[in-house]
Amino acid sequence: MTTLVPDTVAGELDAILAAADRAAPWCAALAPGARRDLCCAIADALDAAADELVPLAQRETHLAEPRLRGELARTTFQLRLLGNEVVSGRALEIVLDPADPDWPAGGRPDLRRLLVPLGPVAVFAAGNFPFAFSVAGGDTAAALAAGCPVIVKAHPGHPELSQRTAAIVRSALAAAGAAEGAFALVHGVETGRALVTDERITAGAFTGSSQGGRALADLAAARPHPIPFNAEMGSVNPVFVTPGASAARLPAIADGYVASYLLGAGQFCTKPGLLFVPEAATEPFLDAAARSVRGTDPALLLNQHIATAHAAARERLVQHPGVREVVAGSEVAPALLATSAAQLVADPGPLTEECFGPTSLVVSYANEAELDMVVRTFTGELTATVHGEADEPLAAWLVQAVGRFAGRVVWNGWPTGVAVSAAMQHGGPYPAALGAFSSVGTTSIRRFQRPVTYQSIPDELLPPELRATNPLNLQRQDGHRA
Amino acid sequence: MTTLVPDTVAGELDAILAAADRAAPWCAALAPGARRDLCCAIADALDAAADELVPLAQRETHLAEPRLRGELARTTFQLRLLGNEVVSGRALEIVLDPADPDWPAGGRPDLRRLLVPLGPVAVFAAGNFPFAFSVAGGDTAAALAAGCPVIVKAHPGHPELSQRTAAIVRSALAAAGAAEGAFALVHGVETGRALVTDERITAGAFTGSSQGGRALADLAAARPHPIPFNAEMGSVNPVFVTPGASAARLPAIADGYVASYLLGAGQFCTKPGLLFVPEAATEPFLDAAARSVRGTDPALLLNQHIATAHAAARERLVQHPGVREVVAGSEVAPALLATSAAQLVADPGPLTEECFGPTSLVVSYANEAELDMVVRTFTGELTATVHGEADEPLAAWLVQAVGRFAGRVVWNGWPTGVAVSAAMQHGGPYPAALGAFSSVGTTSIRRFQRPVTYQSIPDELLPPELRATNPLNLQRQDGHRA
Repeated sequence: MTTLVPDTVAGELDAILAAADRAAPWCAALAPGARRDLCCAIADALDAAADELVPLAQRETHLAEPRLRGELARTTFQLRLLGNEVVSGRALEIVLDPADPDWPAGGRPDLRRLLVPLGPVAVFAAGNFPFAFSVAGGDTAAALAAGCPVIVKAHPGHPELSQRTAAIVRSALAAAGAAEGAFALVHGVETGRALVTDERITAGAFTGSSQGGRALADLAAARPHPIPFNAEMGSVNPVFVTPGASAARLPAIADGYVASYLLGAGQFCTKPGLLFVPEAATEPFLDAAARSVRGTDPALLLNQHIATAHAAARERLVQHPGVREVVAGSEVAPALLATSAAQLVADPGPLTEECFGPTSLVVSYANEAELDMVVRTFTGELTATVHGEADEPLAAWLVQAVGRFAGRVVWNGWPTGVAVSAAMQHGGPYPAALGAFSSVGTTSIRRFQRPVTYQSIPDELLPPELRATNPLNLQRQDGHRA
Repeated sequence: MTTLVPDTVAGELDAILAAADRAAPWCAALAPGARRDLCCAIADALDAAADELVPLAQRETHLAEPRLRGELARTTFQLRLLGNEVVSGRALEIVLDPADPDWPAGGRPDLRRLLVPLGPVAVFAAGNFPFAFSVAGGDTAAALAAGCPVIVKAHPGHPELSQRTAAIVRSALAAAGAAEGAFALVHGVETGRALVTDERITAGAFTGSSQGGRALADLAAARPHPIPFNAEMGSVNPVFVTPGASAARLPAIADGYVASYLLGAGQFCTKPGLLFVPEAATEPFLDAAARSVRGTDPALLLNQHIATAHAAARERLVQHPGVREVVAGSEVAPALLATSAAQLVADPGPLTEECFGPTSLVVSYANEAELDMVVRTFTGELTATVHGEADEPLAAWLVQAVGRFAGRVVWNGWPTGVAVSAAMQHGGPYPAALGAFSSVGTTSIRRFQRPVTYQSIPDELLPPELRATNPLNLQRQDGHRA
């Protein structure tokens, strides 16, 4: 992978960190409306630059134009939505407890809580979504909406697009009157390590590989002052097809499965990497899926690094004695593999490893007892999907059982496609993710905030968000009534 | 300190962990009302045993009977309040996004999110609140309310009380039909380390020293599967007195200060350890405070370990060349020390170190420029207090400035006394605490939960909390309307 942009040098990084540190009080003092305006200014500027940015992204990522246009639209929608979530007040989680001398355990003073920004945030951009999870993606939108300066560590897969996006963000922020230091872009692996260990950084957000995410999280936890480090590290997103569903609509499920795991050439963290199908339906399912795979045009992967890593991961699966190739892939052509639940339960490590790219593994299960053992092999997945009939006891059991390890449970659909909204959870127990909050949707803002309670403060000295007259017209909750 | 109860041996701990692991699905499946019933059953049993528990606590902690009776009442109130927070639905943070084909970026399926329990929780009990922050304290209440089994590592300062409280909790849970393994008590430092590193533990909560909290947090972060570790590690809780306030009511502030820092013999994590007073008012303030200190009866500290540590920390302060003794303490008698803001800014490390026990330091400041430098020396405090006049610009600046490093900002009051309610934040940036949530009040439940989103699930397969008819009558939020 050619990096056209040199790594940020130490002196330059220090100046960027100093500027972010200086900008932090300015960002924190921004009213909700002003934060929204910054997010919208960036969104407007990116939308206006679509015809320049999309071809650049195409060249650097091999992704198709319609997908990239859609992704850019998602990105600017996301900026506006997160900005508006602050304006509504919902992202501030304001709770008001009026004074109550009779409150148990000694009475209660007037208590007013809201969420405030942590300070400068380090964002580690992903390679597979050059807009939505990169320089001006969800993490940047969430941090700015929270009132935090952002330093983005560029993904090396699309350096020119990153530079150009950053220039547009900087100029939009400058035109909107933002403090110097509210946003910056840096490059280089060592730069990323220096960023997450610098005392001026107060939180981190990462989307990418398990190894990369864990290494940075370990650095964040070992600092003299540890910081929260939110990492979304992917998963195999198991899909479970019940006997009822396979009897009712096997061909449609096979087509949907192939379309989902080959979306974006399989380079989604929500790609279904494993699909479980009843033994009796396995051969017809594999026939239908194989036809669908062979009918899909091969697509270049994001870059040579990804292509090589995918080929190696696929080779490890193919070499496993319990795995057979149903459709043999090449570096560009997709592959379909098959194994049995008994094999997977006997050797879950290699068979449940993520294979990032256009490969997926169909797993045949003999009975419900085997499925029960399968479900216990998973500890943390972004998603789990059930294809079933609503009146099947097995389907009801699966919906309940997979919630133990998944961040999102999907019914008769596909895990690819993560709606940016309030009820979305994109995350899951480790190793899918690290952190208590979603990395997509409006609650992603919460990653960069902390609660502060004001006790018995005269109204005129309170932040406007907490004043009696609610001058900003924010959504606020009554705690416990006096 | 005599430990009357032997350390839990490895085989016993393993059996306890296995039972907690088995109990986790049972606890998770409890309806909100059933979780509340468990919390209330424990509260009722503890209230009924007050006449047995309070004398036991007196003997082991040297705390006075009225304080201990009040603390037990707070503890049982806390159990009931947190149980009810789940019944109301508020602790589940339910958000419903109806399907919307026109939602930007590809439409939106029906999405329903709630918070689910993490699994077995390790609670590390504190020594200074033998009821409210110990075996059946806030962490245990929050974990049970969240739907998590609890294993409490007893504080060695009150072993018999811990044993007796645990027996009451176990018997109340058994009578209420709880699964074996929903609650257990263990003993020993090594046991605590084994607990936090065991793969069956999914979260930790700690109240105590910086060193202890950090050591356990480091173990939690270094596990093969890292877990959230919430630690409340105390702070010096600075108090700032403006010229206006000292002119208006210096004697009352001096009396309030002394009463607050000597409450519970200064063994509160919210004890005001530093008070800043204008130079011109310093001598009258110290005179008034010294009179008040001398008029306070000495009290035994919790145990010899605390007394020795306090004497050593006080000695380090007294030996500092910039510190003078206004009232010299003894091992039991309280002390009042004084220094200047210039000294503190020049050498903040030793002068802002927590001195747990009946000692506090009055700091004289010359002007606002000095206060500005002082404020910058703090990075993380549980609380900060301002005594001022509402129309003083300095007071307005202080309220705003101390919010940068404090979890709670108190006006014309005292930081000791932490109301158990919805708007409370008990925590703060590191080193005061680790974790994104309060350790006191209803949001403390959130430490032991994670979000799960259900996508397009048929109503009859959804958890009752998310069904269309809202059969449990829970508070739920609309996400974004279709």
